[in-house]
Amino acid sequence: MPNPAKLRILPLGGLGEIGKNMMLIQYENDGIIIDTGIMFPENDMLGIDYIIPDFQYVIDQLEEGLTVHGIIITHGHEDHTGAIGHVLDALPVPVYATALTAGLLEIKMRSFGHTDHPLHVFKAGDVLRLGPFSVETFHVCHSIPDGVGLGINTPVGLVVHSSDFKFDHTPVDGWPPDFARLAEFAQRGVLALLADSTNADQEGWTPSERVIDRAFDEVFARAKGRIIVATFASLISRIQQVAQAAQKYDRKMAVAGHSMVEYIKVATRLGYLKLPPDLMVPVDRANKMPPHEIVIMATGTQGEPSAVLGRLAWGEHRQLEIERGDTVIMSAHPIPGNEELVHRTINKLIQRGAHVIYDPIARVHVSGHARRDELKLLINLLRPKFFIPVHGELRHLTQHSLLAQELGIPAQNIAVVENGMEILLSPDRLEVGERVPGGYVFVDGKGVGDVGPIVMRDRETLGRDGFVSVLVLIDAETGELIEPPEVISRGFVFLRDASGLIEMAQERIAEIVRRHERGSLTVAIQDALSKMFYTETKRRPMTFAFVREVSMAE
Amino acid sequence: MPNPAKLRILPLGGLGEIGKNMMLIQYENDGIIIDTGIMFPENDMLGIDYIIPDFQYVIDQLEEGLTVHGIIITHGHEDHTGAIGHVLDALPVPVYATALTAGLLEIKMRSFGHTDHPLHVFKAGDVLRLGPFSVETFHVCHSIPDGVGLGINTPVGLVVHSSDFKFDHTPVDGWPPDFARLAEFAQRGVLALLADSTNADQEGWTPSERVIDRAFDEVFARAKGRIIVATFASLISRIQQVAQAAQKYDRKMAVAGHSMVEYIKVATRLGYLKLPPDLMVPVDRANKMPPHEIVIMATGTQGEPSAVLGRLAWGEHRQLEIERGDTVIMSAHPIPGNEELVHRTINKLIQRGAHVIYDPIARVHVSGHARRDELKLLINLLRPKFFIPVHGELRHLTQHSLLAQELGIPAQNIAVVENGMEILLSPDRLEVGERVPGGYVFVDGKGVGDVGPIVMRDRETLGRDGFVSVLVLIDAETGELIEPPEVISRGFVFLRDASGLIEMAQERIAEIVRRHERGSLTVAIQDALSKMFYTETKRRPMTFAFVREVSMAE
Repeated sequence: MPNPAKLRILPLGGLGEIGKNMMLIQYENDGIIIDTGIMFPENDMLGIDYIIPDFQYVIDQLEEGLTVHGIIITHGHEDHTGAIGHVLDALPVPVYATALTAGLLEIKMRSFGHTDHPLHVFKAGDVLRLGPFSVETFHVCHSIPDGVGLGINTPVGLVVHSSDFKFDHTPVDGWPPDFARLAEFAQRGVLALLADSTNADQEGWTPSERVIDRAFDEVFARAKGRIIVATFASLISRIQQVAQAAQKYDRKMAVAGHSMVEYIKVATRLGYLKLPPDLMVPVDRANKMPPHEIVIMATGTQGEPSAVLGRLAWGEHRQLEIERGDTVIMSAHPIPGNEELVHRTINKLIQRGAHVIYDPIARVHVSGHARRDELKLLINLLRPKFFIPVHGELRHLTQHSLLAQELGIPAQNIAVVENGMEILLSPDRLEVGERVPGGYVFVDGKGVGDVGPIVMRDRETLGRDGFVSVLVLIDAETGELIEPPEVISRGFVFLRDASGLIEMAQERIAEIVRRHERGSLTVAIQDALSKMFYTETKRRPMTFAFVREVSMAE
Repeated sequence: MPNPAKLRILPLGGLGEIGKNMMLIQYENDGIIIDTGIMFPENDMLGIDYIIPDFQYVIDQLEEGLTVHGIIITHGHEDHTGAIGHVLDALPVPVYATALTAGLLEIKMRSFGHTDHPLHVFKAGDVLRLGPFSVETFHVCHSIPDGVGLGINTPVGLVVHSSDFKFDHTPVDGWPPDFARLAEFAQRGVLALLADSTNADQEGWTPSERVIDRAFDEVFARAKGRIIVATFASLISRIQQVAQAAQKYDRKMAVAGHSMVEYIKVATRLGYLKLPPDLMVPVDRANKMPPHEIVIMATGTQGEPSAVLGRLAWGEHRQLEIERGDTVIMSAHPIPGNEELVHRTINKLIQRGAHVIYDPIARVHVSGHARRDELKLLINLLRPKFFIPVHGELRHLTQHSLLAQELGIPAQNIAVVENGMEILLSPDRLEVGERVPGGYVFVDGKGVGDVGPIVMRDRETLGRDGFVSVLVLIDAETGELIEPPEVISRGFVFLRDASGLIEMAQERIAEIVRRHERGSLTVAIQDALSKMFYTETKRRPMTFAFVREVSMAE
């Protein structure tokens, strides 16, 4: 083990955000993992289903003597839970989570066959003893219930991890942040703070979830037709708020969207969501009721074409259809990268006659992450010696670091790192250590990690300019073409209108076959065709030739 | 002509925004065109270079007797000028523009060979007489100098078109909006107003360009190293502001980026930009000067990998390199859809040691479009009888319509339409008429309109899952395979690691050839391979087979 007397903090494999999806905390040969999340592909990552952290380094360390005592999942969002199946496949250690998080993890673990795997449910406030670490969990507010931050007592000192959080004084579930615990940590002395940086470039204080009530109230009071509220399936408190508004305005509530139905089932079973049974109606019954008596909860706030709202926008939902007079509330913000799709969805819904309410038209969504004033409060509550901004892109971490410096934490006591860079912590020193092999792994269909840069580059080229394949059969005796070369092409030109171009290609091949003297005929044909296609179209399709010398069947 | 006694307003071929890129104003057989702009492809429009309005309908109308008396270009942005070459190819009528706009148009017209085409330069305030229309031009403020709005006197009444605008009381060029002309229009009575809706969902008043000075001042005062300011090449006033800051803080200015150099050349020649000659230095000289004496203007605010900022972020610029201590100012907002790329660029610049300043960290950019309070002022200044929101997506037009209703314009006097839908205007009535064939046309390399939905869908499939081509040669006498089928594949799996899969495919082909009895062997092989690939990988590559019966050469 390098630097045995130091605590090692290693954020692993985020795509853009640092320390969000997975983190290793290690002291000598003992470690714990915090979170096992997935990332979603960016717009130019063609064909990728999702992305998991590259944790091979952790697995390799097991052979060097590392023991991982457990995996703690801080809350139930996909970017913290989604890779649990992949991680347990390689690292079957106990998992620790609060009840709601565990309920959601169970579904994922089951789909990977980890049915009997130890999953320990704890309550915020419980202490987890994992090897040399004693982890004091504490309640935080976020856009899913039952999230926790961690006070990790380590041999070098107390390390506090905020997890994703906001300081909501009036959360929908009535469970405010655990300020007392934070104050107590401060009294004992905090060696280092790892804190959520997502909104570190946003001034002020993120509004309470409660402000949504007012916006819902206004919309519900005015709406004459159906109301459709789209939000994240995991935003349990928002679903609760819609239920309350529905009751107040005498509407029944239906739920459309498989994932939301699942979340509601788990959250209701575990007591995080309270829906009076007479409130709920199935979608097909809602369809038969007068429009002003109905509110429909739906998935698809990110414009995903296969989710409910996307299907409604394109008129492709099996049970539901947008009608003139519907009010659609987009109770979510576009995740960066999804803006185009979200805006297109809104325009399509308007086209079909819906009145669409979204931020900034009304305050129908608030972020689940703390802004600058909250971040300042957290730092001043804890007064940590060392500061490590996490959960955000490099630009957010940088702003968070500047903010901490404004509050008096010296620059040399702050570490802004990227995923795969280790931080080494001793009672009196914070160092950035080695960069370990890390990064992220693409999951595409059944393939985990088999799609790398070469395949991605080919997809980009194919997506941009398509391909051309030709079959060239040559008479072995005469050296002449046996038949006109067959040309197959997709994504390059519209073949039915491009017969001139295809004939040119065939003539070019004939000419090359006639004149060819040495070297590979295949390469000569491919090169000549590539060149010709570029000259004629200024496009660069991938070009392949099958060339064979044969005798023709008689 | 349908409805001969009515004025016809026809917005043409925007992708998402309505009436922005091109518009036909027609009365009986006489028409004028306003703007000839391009659109930029969205993230899922793979391989498309740019998009032009589909104006075939206008061309078809020429045979029905329509005379187009001229094309008026309101300002020099690409989304209003970029398609001029394409339009003049089919519709060689005179073009009218202010000096700066004309200077920029000339370059585009030249590249399409329209060197001697009539291009009439007017000054804001001039009146253009085009057939039955007398068009009173008036100065507006926007994010490029020398923009105009239009007061179009038509046989049915005065129609005012705001063009892209903001009410900037303190513009950088000292040329405020022409309120007097608007007041005068109001006195004469405005039949209809067409107004910019881009920011119709934004409360308040767009800040003056002048607020940027303060932000620049703060950054320039503090920066110890080089300053690199990235902005739009056409944002002439921003370049002027950087020049002023540079002079104040004793820095020399260099310009990197072909398009910005071009814009600066035209704007300087025509007097819209005033750069003291001793201020400017070439990039290679700037490289040899002390960092605190230099500011570099650069293109690439949208994260375009081939623009200057993109190259700097990825360390691929020929002349420049980011150094620790550089300050980069992103003096632009991401255009929706570009957020991911912009954020990636910022993170990369930070990684290379730059301090990056962007909104919301500091107010280093403001929009060029009016917000709600300005839109209200425009409507109340003009008090039009009819209102037609334009320049924005459907969601913006809808908000703009609601805003106009708040100000007392009755809903039936407002028309929210999409591109290709005609508006018919008489002195006492506003109607939405027919939908004409319209839309947009993809430009890809040399091809204009040859890439349609089928090619695009193929590109999407190829981009997501790649393709497989196989060559199957069968002995005509024995019916057996002459050689193991050759498999070519790209974008599907990494071939070097997929030999097992390739062998399975070869075996599957052999089996089919052995058992095949009737129907097309090609189709049987393609179907079987597609199925096998999906079962094995959960991916769906396009699959093609060349099948031939031959005798082998001996």
